Amino acid sequence: MADPGNATLLVASNRGPLSFTETDDGSLRASRGGGGLVSGLSGLSNSDTQQIVWVCAALSDGDRAAARKAPDGRLDGDGHDTGGLAVRMLDIDQATFHRAYNSIANATLWFVHHLLYAIPTSPSFDAGFRREWSSYESYNRAFAEALAAEAAPDAKVLVQDYHLTLVPRLLRDLRPDLRIAHFSHTPWAPVDYFRLLPADVARDTLLGMLGADHVGFHSPRWARAFADCCREVLGAETEDDRVTYGGRATHLGIHPLGVDAESLRERAREHDVESRVAALRRRLEDRMAIVRVDRTELSKNIGRGLLAYRELLRRYPEWRGKVTHLASAYPSRHDLPEYREYTAHVQRLAAEIEDEFGTDDWRPIVLDVTDDYPRSLALYRVGDVLLVNPVRDGMNLVAKEVPVLSENGCVVVLSTEAGVADEFGDDALLVNPFDISGTADALHTALSMPADERQQRCRRLAAVAGALPPARWLADQVDAI
Amino acid sequence: MADPGNATLLVASNRGPLSFTETDDGSLRASRGGGGLVSGLSGLSNSDTQQIVWVCAALSDGDRAAARKAPDGRLDGDGHDTGGLAVRMLDIDQATFHRAYNSIANATLWFVHHLLYAIPTSPSFDAGFRREWSSYESYNRAFAEALAAEAAPDAKVLVQDYHLTLVPRLLRDLRPDLRIAHFSHTPWAPVDYFRLLPADVARDTLLGMLGADHVGFHSPRWARAFADCCREVLGAETEDDRVTYGGRATHLGIHPLGVDAESLRERAREHDVESRVAALRRRLEDRMAIVRVDRTELSKNIGRGLLAYRELLRRYPEWRGKVTHLASAYPSRHDLPEYREYTAHVQRLAAEIEDEFGTDDWRPIVLDVTDDYPRSLALYRVGDVLLVNPVRDGMNLVAKEVPVLSENGCVVVLSTEAGVADEFGDDALLVNPFDISGTADALHTALSMPADERQQRCRRLAAVAGALPPARWLADQVDAI
Repeated sequence: MADPGNATLLVASNRGPLSFTETDDGSLRASRGGGGLVSGLSGLSNSDTQQIVWVCAALSDGDRAAARKAPDGRLDGDGHDTGGLAVRMLDIDQATFHRAYNSIANATLWFVHHLLYAIPTSPSFDAGFRREWSSYESYNRAFAEALAAEAAPDAKVLVQDYHLTLVPRLLRDLRPDLRIAHFSHTPWAPVDYFRLLPADVARDTLLGMLGADHVGFHSPRWARAFADCCREVLGAETEDDRVTYGGRATHLGIHPLGVDAESLRERAREHDVESRVAALRRRLEDRMAIVRVDRTELSKNIGRGLLAYRELLRRYPEWRGKVTHLASAYPSRHDLPEYREYTAHVQRLAAEIEDEFGTDDWRPIVLDVTDDYPRSLALYRVGDVLLVNPVRDGMNLVAKEVPVLSENGCVVVLSTEAGVADEFGDDALLVNPFDISGTADALHTALSMPADERQQRCRRLAAVAGALPPARWLADQVDAI
Repeated sequence: MADPGNATLLVASNRGPLSFTETDDGSLRASRGGGGLVSGLSGLSNSDTQQIVWVCAALSDGDRAAARKAPDGRLDGDGHDTGGLAVRMLDIDQATFHRAYNSIANATLWFVHHLLYAIPTSPSFDAGFRREWSSYESYNRAFAEALAAEAAPDAKVLVQDYHLTLVPRLLRDLRPDLRIAHFSHTPWAPVDYFRLLPADVARDTLLGMLGADHVGFHSPRWARAFADCCREVLGAETEDDRVTYGGRATHLGIHPLGVDAESLRERAREHDVESRVAALRRRLEDRMAIVRVDRTELSKNIGRGLLAYRELLRRYPEWRGKVTHLASAYPSRHDLPEYREYTAHVQRLAAEIEDEFGTDDWRPIVLDVTDDYPRSLALYRVGDVLLVNPVRDGMNLVAKEVPVLSENGCVVVLSTEAGVADEFGDDALLVNPFDISGTADALHTALSMPADERQQRCRRLAAVAGALPPARWLADQVDAI
């Protein structure tokens, strides 16, 4: 067992709550990110006895410079605002990080859990994959070792997401005294798809997770899929709320992350959002707005959303000139060729719709591919219909943020394959994300819905969305271990 | 209820046992196909009381001309050798047939059951798909009506495959007196993948199948997947061997089709095969032969097979110059663009391997893309290692034919995702078809295996392969209803 540290609560995630950029004079400027999780942790850190450390990877040159300058690897004493938390940033060899983060986490595990492969030709788990997988193991081991060094006896550790599936087991081997939770922000693959992975990789991934005392998901569906994999691949015993393997039980927890409605509303009243709302209203005139806001991510299904909008305009011509589709698809993972091609595909489809239906007086679609958070919030406020149609999605927080901010009682057209669909049920208009015709029909129904029904649905959705804000989401998991 | 006919046993399949070509003088020339099923049926037709009718679709101009010339739609009285069966060929409108056969059966249902979609962009079930689906319904209805017209009271009907999933229910509605069996020669999709289909299409497909008294599959895995879909999509009650829905029970049967070893051996001793065996032996000299024989079909995984062979030559250089990969990939479904691209992809990979390893004395790979059945049989005879690595396959008969014909005790390197893997178990070398490195290792193990072990394994595989020849396979299903 490694020597204990003094942290009583630890969080581990690839991306931490701080990032650094090198300025022209060679100094480092810190900026805070991490959203609700940081505020949630800050709440917990107010308690005198709680010492919190967040372990994350250095992601940029600035991060790496900051990590090297920190004497004990911690970034709390360096004049940066870390929200009361100590941050330990791991300076992992760049080539190792690239293989672990891009090739394994984002181009393999993400693809497996979201069913994104074109099976006839990908994936191919060859000798190159073996090297990548070994880097993923090293990267996970670096986290486990840092956590083991920082954690006080019997401390609690919250491990985040598919980047760090091996950490719970590696950490338990180093420090059997710790209480370990893992949370997956993604879906979990059905067993027939999970089995694409080489047998030892599939096995090690599950065993890695089962090193935790508690394994959390956004939706019961993903927890069930995980249990199915443990049963079919490992031969584990499974019940609704636990998996037992090798004499140890791991509890399954459902923690559907919600939004902090009050702080979201405050942010959306700031000037930068107000000015964008005004600009959008001028553009819309008296037309209705179908909005969507997504990363340009293969799972988000932006292309089929556009096809559904095109079919709406073809089959329900009464909406021509009466509706505008405001689609925000901001860039993501452009280091992967699939993502660059996907962005081009989405832009081509938008241009086709413009060509088919646009007039001198009316642009049927406005596709924005820049990342502008205040503009996203403005879209949330003005939208009459929100389209959220991912092919598969762990939760989808946009679907929860919009009802909170909506001014007109926004109708949510929602994929059955998003985790949030379990909570929203029929207060949203549920669609099969592959069914273009069904989605077009749902858009028509949404646009045609009477104002009072829209508002009642939207109010109920907002209540669901605020049910488990980040601070409680986090506290629940801490309590669970 | 429709008026009964006089057939006591009926078979329905898209492709029938006869095909016709128009000759230069305007007459029609018939040729027989249908393989083991025809011989199997011929056996049953020897019984005096059994009147057998085979209902199929006209597939070519020649077929359509023959169908139109037959006075009652039956082709038995026209001087053609139908093996003692009456054949009723349906002259279905060509555009309807194209949409039903190509767009729905081969480009939708086949893709769903084999997990072949590139999910980020396909499938898209739009207004065009709705038209295609409606053609599939008409095509299925044409079969149901023909069967209803031909069948004697209480007759037995064997409906074949994914082209005709709606027939059992349509036929039961017309003729509740009939005993109906359906057999799927494909895998069945896992429920999370089956749900890609629009809700009503998924539902109608399952309800169509449940119109049968008996639903058969090659492997317990596919039967289980079908039952899962019935439970999750329809809310049906499921047990191991039956699905109950709406007060009716449908039995699930496992009928793993085997080969008629004796007739296969006879065919493989004919002159056209002998001469090809001799040519292959001259080409091989004293090198070992890794063989494969597949349709160029997206599910057959020919590309990853070539990648595994390349990794074998890279990581086990002792095999360079000592082994030749004889790969036969004959054309299939070249009306679908995915298939043309796939063929080009396979040819590129083969050329890369040739470039990387080929010498003046040694061609590492011989890729043959022509359809030459005697050459395939010759490959079966001379192969030292057979590679059968589909990403998903209902059964895979090549894996059963090779051990029967093998002269050297061929080692079978076999995908876990082929139905035949359930029967072969560890007498084959099982591989994950996505695991290139694992497949390369298995090829090395196979090439290195001592002669007596190879022969013992091969003998056991041949016994399994011959366990359920077509005639018995057919008789079992007739008995089951």
